[in-house]
Amino acid sequence: MRLRNVKDKDEILENCSFLIKNAEKVKGHWTEEFQNDNPIYLEIGMGKGKFLLENAKRYPNINFVGIEKFDSVLAKAIKKLEPLPNLRIIRMDASQIASIFDKEISLIYLNFSDPWPKNRHHKKRLTSPNFLKEYDKIFKDKKRIEMKTDNEDLFLYSLESLSAYHYVLSDLSFDYHKQKNDIIMTEYEVKFHSKGCKIYHLFAQK
Amino acid sequence: MRLRNVKDKDEILENCSFLIKNAEKVKGHWTEEFQNDNPIYLEIGMGKGKFLLENAKRYPNINFVGIEKFDSVLAKAIKKLEPLPNLRIIRMDASQIASIFDKEISLIYLNFSDPWPKNRHHKKRLTSPNFLKEYDKIFKDKKRIEMKTDNEDLFLYSLESLSAYHYVLSDLSFDYHKQKNDIIMTEYEVKFHSKGCKIYHLFAQK
Repeated sequence: MRLRNVKDKDEILENCSFLIKNAEKVKGHWTEEFQNDNPIYLEIGMGKGKFLLENAKRYPNINFVGIEKFDSVLAKAIKKLEPLPNLRIIRMDASQIASIFDKEISLIYLNFSDPWPKNRHHKKRLTSPNFLKEYDKIFKDKKRIEMKTDNEDLFLYSLESLSAYHYVLSDLSFDYHKQKNDIIMTEYEVKFHSKGCKIYHLFAQK
Repeated sequence: MRLRNVKDKDEILENCSFLIKNAEKVKGHWTEEFQNDNPIYLEIGMGKGKFLLENAKRYPNINFVGIEKFDSVLAKAIKKLEPLPNLRIIRMDASQIASIFDKEISLIYLNFSDPWPKNRHHKKRLTSPNFLKEYDKIFKDKKRIEMKTDNEDLFLYSLESLSAYHYVLSDLSFDYHKQKNDIIMTEYEVKFHSKGCKIYHLFAQK
């Protein structure tokens, strides 16, 4: 994603009621934060927030947390998002995820993650074993990952990496929109899909 | 594959020195049949035998067995094949595989297997759980399956089925010939590849 600076981003972030500032303090206390025991679904790399918002509206009995590392992207997301009882966002890097959650997550969404195409960057891919190890620390019981991407190499890498980590793969698709209707899309996905490009999908569980 | 009758097929099969007629009797005695302890690789649905023959020539320290259910196809294969110490063929249906081998197989090749596209026929696909169960009986120690297909739906089905059966997937490709050189091809693959069509590949192990 090309990043454009948002001038008043610090102020936007500061004044956002559903952006959690000291998320480390909420670790282990997410049921209190949401004031219910509903499952928590996490989107890593939430971008501009469309996917998160539409999910939170459609599924009020699931709590949604989005994380995003770029201030400017987050500021744009906040402009679009609405305060909802089941929606929170955090500015942070995915590598720090285990400092925020303690066996509290029921599902992780990875939507159009950075493919990090160079081999020497493979550890930065969000489905690399070092990330999967971090996810182990935050999943409640069943480990469930749902992924969409337009990048064939990242998709292949992810299938192999998840399989080697003994996830069971299902709901695989090389053209997700052809198979399913009523998909909640990210901003990127809308643009990409409108051009007629195919989107890969996987579900992984263990 | 379209089947054309081969007039003298019975005679061809009868006179073939490397076609094993009473394979049930060889069960548990394949090291004697080959007169060595080399690993045995099995191609289920060997078609006209090109893949098997080229493998047997390239890898003399591996024993290759091909099975094929159609007389006419087998007769055509026999015309092409050569007697080699590490090559045997059997006329039989894949469902009977466990009556022929007893924990003696090191790898199974599934090349361009019938996709059985209708849902109600899914049990006939060679990567369906009922076949995987049969393969368990014939694998020596490590279970290893290598598959090539041009059929996207069969490929997706196989990835999911093998994953659900706790195989670990690797060497995945949506365009195998783009990634690798020096691939030993089946007759079908030669034709298909020459048209510029993509070939899917997977390796599964547990």
